[in-house]
Amino acid sequence: MEIAAIKDNYSREKERFIRELHDYVRLDSISTDPAYEINCRNCAEWLVRHLNSIGLHSELWETNSKPVVSAHWKGQKGKPHVLIYGHYDVQPVVPLEEWKTKPFEPAIDSGRLYGRGSADNKGPTFSIVKAIETLIRAGELTCPLTLIVEGEEECGSEGLTEKLPVWQERLKADILLLADCSTYVEGVPGLTLGLRAVVGLEVRLGGIKNDLHSGMHGGVVKNPATELCRMVASLHDAQGRVLVPGFYDGVREITPDIRREANKVPCTEKQYEKMIGVPPLGGEAGFSMNERRGLRPCIDVNGIHSGYGGPGGKTIIPAHAIAKLTARLVPDQEPGKVLAGIEQYLRSKAPTGLNLEMIVPEASGKALCVSPTLAPIAKAAAVIEECAGHRPVMAWEGGSIPVVSELVAVTGAVPVLLGLFMDQDNLHAPNESFLLEHFRQGYLFTARFLSTL
Amino acid sequence: MEIAAIKDNYSREKERFIRELHDYVRLDSISTDPAYEINCRNCAEWLVRHLNSIGLHSELWETNSKPVVSAHWKGQKGKPHVLIYGHYDVQPVVPLEEWKTKPFEPAIDSGRLYGRGSADNKGPTFSIVKAIETLIRAGELTCPLTLIVEGEEECGSEGLTEKLPVWQERLKADILLLADCSTYVEGVPGLTLGLRAVVGLEVRLGGIKNDLHSGMHGGVVKNPATELCRMVASLHDAQGRVLVPGFYDGVREITPDIRREANKVPCTEKQYEKMIGVPPLGGEAGFSMNERRGLRPCIDVNGIHSGYGGPGGKTIIPAHAIAKLTARLVPDQEPGKVLAGIEQYLRSKAPTGLNLEMIVPEASGKALCVSPTLAPIAKAAAVIEECAGHRPVMAWEGGSIPVVSELVAVTGAVPVLLGLFMDQDNLHAPNESFLLEHFRQGYLFTARFLSTL
Repeated sequence: MEIAAIKDNYSREKERFIRELHDYVRLDSISTDPAYEINCRNCAEWLVRHLNSIGLHSELWETNSKPVVSAHWKGQKGKPHVLIYGHYDVQPVVPLEEWKTKPFEPAIDSGRLYGRGSADNKGPTFSIVKAIETLIRAGELTCPLTLIVEGEEECGSEGLTEKLPVWQERLKADILLLADCSTYVEGVPGLTLGLRAVVGLEVRLGGIKNDLHSGMHGGVVKNPATELCRMVASLHDAQGRVLVPGFYDGVREITPDIRREANKVPCTEKQYEKMIGVPPLGGEAGFSMNERRGLRPCIDVNGIHSGYGGPGGKTIIPAHAIAKLTARLVPDQEPGKVLAGIEQYLRSKAPTGLNLEMIVPEASGKALCVSPTLAPIAKAAAVIEECAGHRPVMAWEGGSIPVVSELVAVTGAVPVLLGLFMDQDNLHAPNESFLLEHFRQGYLFTARFLSTL
Repeated sequence: MEIAAIKDNYSREKERFIRELHDYVRLDSISTDPAYEINCRNCAEWLVRHLNSIGLHSELWETNSKPVVSAHWKGQKGKPHVLIYGHYDVQPVVPLEEWKTKPFEPAIDSGRLYGRGSADNKGPTFSIVKAIETLIRAGELTCPLTLIVEGEEECGSEGLTEKLPVWQERLKADILLLADCSTYVEGVPGLTLGLRAVVGLEVRLGGIKNDLHSGMHGGVVKNPATELCRMVASLHDAQGRVLVPGFYDGVREITPDIRREANKVPCTEKQYEKMIGVPPLGGEAGFSMNERRGLRPCIDVNGIHSGYGGPGGKTIIPAHAIAKLTARLVPDQEPGKVLAGIEQYLRSKAPTGLNLEMIVPEASGKALCVSPTLAPIAKAAAVIEECAGHRPVMAWEGGSIPVVSELVAVTGAVPVLLGLFMDQDNLHAPNESFLLEHFRQGYLFTARFLSTL
């Protein structure tokens, strides 16, 4: 289908498309919270019905945890087989009081759709689905397609990852297309050349039977909150460099070419500060903001909690303290080795006199790096220019889609990582939103890209 | 009144005494939480009615915050004037899920009264009230008495402290009696020779508009949770010594005599571990458990909170982080100077790239130290031996009653600090309880002590 026809079609159909997207975002498929198990399955079943309704053959593929939504289109022999990946699960919604709208009551304001999952990843994946629908109705979908939408991207993709060896044959493809990445220019999708890997663990210090009176026990017993702070503080030196032995093993050096390309991302430190509220002064000294984001590994505290946090004071020594940590990794770090190294280091920093417990989920997916000279990447860049009027920014992105590198390994496909969301979209945070213009761009790109293969 | 008559009277009346104590503990007078303002006043008014009903002249003395319950007994000229101090406010009750009974539904089990405030300080003060009642009814209360029960001991005693210069004349006394201290031997009240002072502050790091996606921003922005941990960790060296400059200025050296006396407190490190769950390995290296508890200053985290703490994970960089800290001080540290020093030190350790906010309430009450050779102390020790059959343990206690040293300074009274609660009573923690035998001991001591003056 030609670009003009695709654009015309979007204009005609957009109201229905966005109404249907509302239905999808309304489903509260929070995967990290066990209380939402059934809500996740409801969402998966809604998507199966929807994909069948547009002419694909869709069904649930069960895993040991959450089901994967699959869909198939036979296409023509000789055409490249395209595997499309997305996820129907979303992040938790706390702190709820900071949302201006209800997270699962999607609302449009100033060209944005607000709601949990609107940008990560329901909106972007749904733009692909709508493009497929249009090509099917026009009789112009000629490529064989396999679509998988999993329900555990936000918590490690365990179900899908475990099944990959079993499903290897079903998933064989030439191109892996997904739209779960960033762009840096409003109105122009990005192409992502790298994704960081992510590993995580939880640290718990305790052993004290009850919160203690801080007068009667202060200076007598070790304070779990203080000691956990000391453990966390031991992770970095004053220059922001991670102190875990072996952490930087295998980290690929940044070549001058890559450094130049990475620093083209059009966001200045001033713009960043305006958007985020504080200047970008985190991470390792000696690397630029864009280098630190995409090309250097890091360790972050996602949460730390101990003792009293209510109004006024409470003079206690907390009985226990917990911290949730994640590390973002780059090629060619070994996630399993890094995670084991962090665990071992923290154990070595644990205080005597308190009990340490660590919850260390298995590490998954390595970091990914794609060459911009591969044919599908070059073609995707040209299609973006045709649809949006500008060449895409090619970026090494800081985020992680752990299963993607595993999908690449298992399927042998070239990954085309389309960037549709922006920093302003508040992913994983209150007031997540998605630009409707980027929903349109995802649609235009997919319809045109599939037409040119 | 002779000890035999006092004991008989307790046996006859104890059921009513304890029923009335239930009524007092049932009142949820949490002073640190502004939501409980009216509940605190209700409690004060209950106490005024009760004190009037036993024959004292009682009324509320208003302050700029919570009212002080006062009561007066004229007594005979020439007898020493006794000022009795207590507090009707209690600590918050979170974490509520760890309570085995409801905190404000007092319940008796195995000779203990469970409920918030049962030990700190409603039970002990009420044992004094009941002894006064008995002496009045018997026509044997000869000393002039002034009783004040304040409503802000758990949050700095601001209202009472501000009024002390105004009320100086009303409060003049020879002896200050209070029962808000520890004992270390079941069945035998303690006599406290020292109290630590307490100062506190709250640290907030933020400036980030929203929780951020830890992939897209990890290594780019400073993480408030990580940075607050670094600030907290900077407070102590590896030997548990506080690193704040000037923190130890004025700390009185421990003389061999005091060291010997302090280490008589009958609690071994093994017993401590059994009771608390972990061994007493906190505080400064080079001092014994009992020395660290009563004779050395310390800094503790009462709470630290940032980011996600729910089930599973959430890959965010938290928008902000808060920590509540308190320090316990000994003679002759200057609370105001120490607090300013901690604030200044933490400011010097604050990261660039985030906003720091500190809430620093005014410092009150110095630490207290009493000589065991003073006549009222010697008499109190003799009375305890008469009532309980054993000499009391004399201890430098780790806790703080900030207003006590100010009361001593304003009134010129010798403080008799009766210890009725024990470590096992879970003060400030879930499942607070008070031994009914210690309620009896408080009653016996007060009735006999007042009779001998």
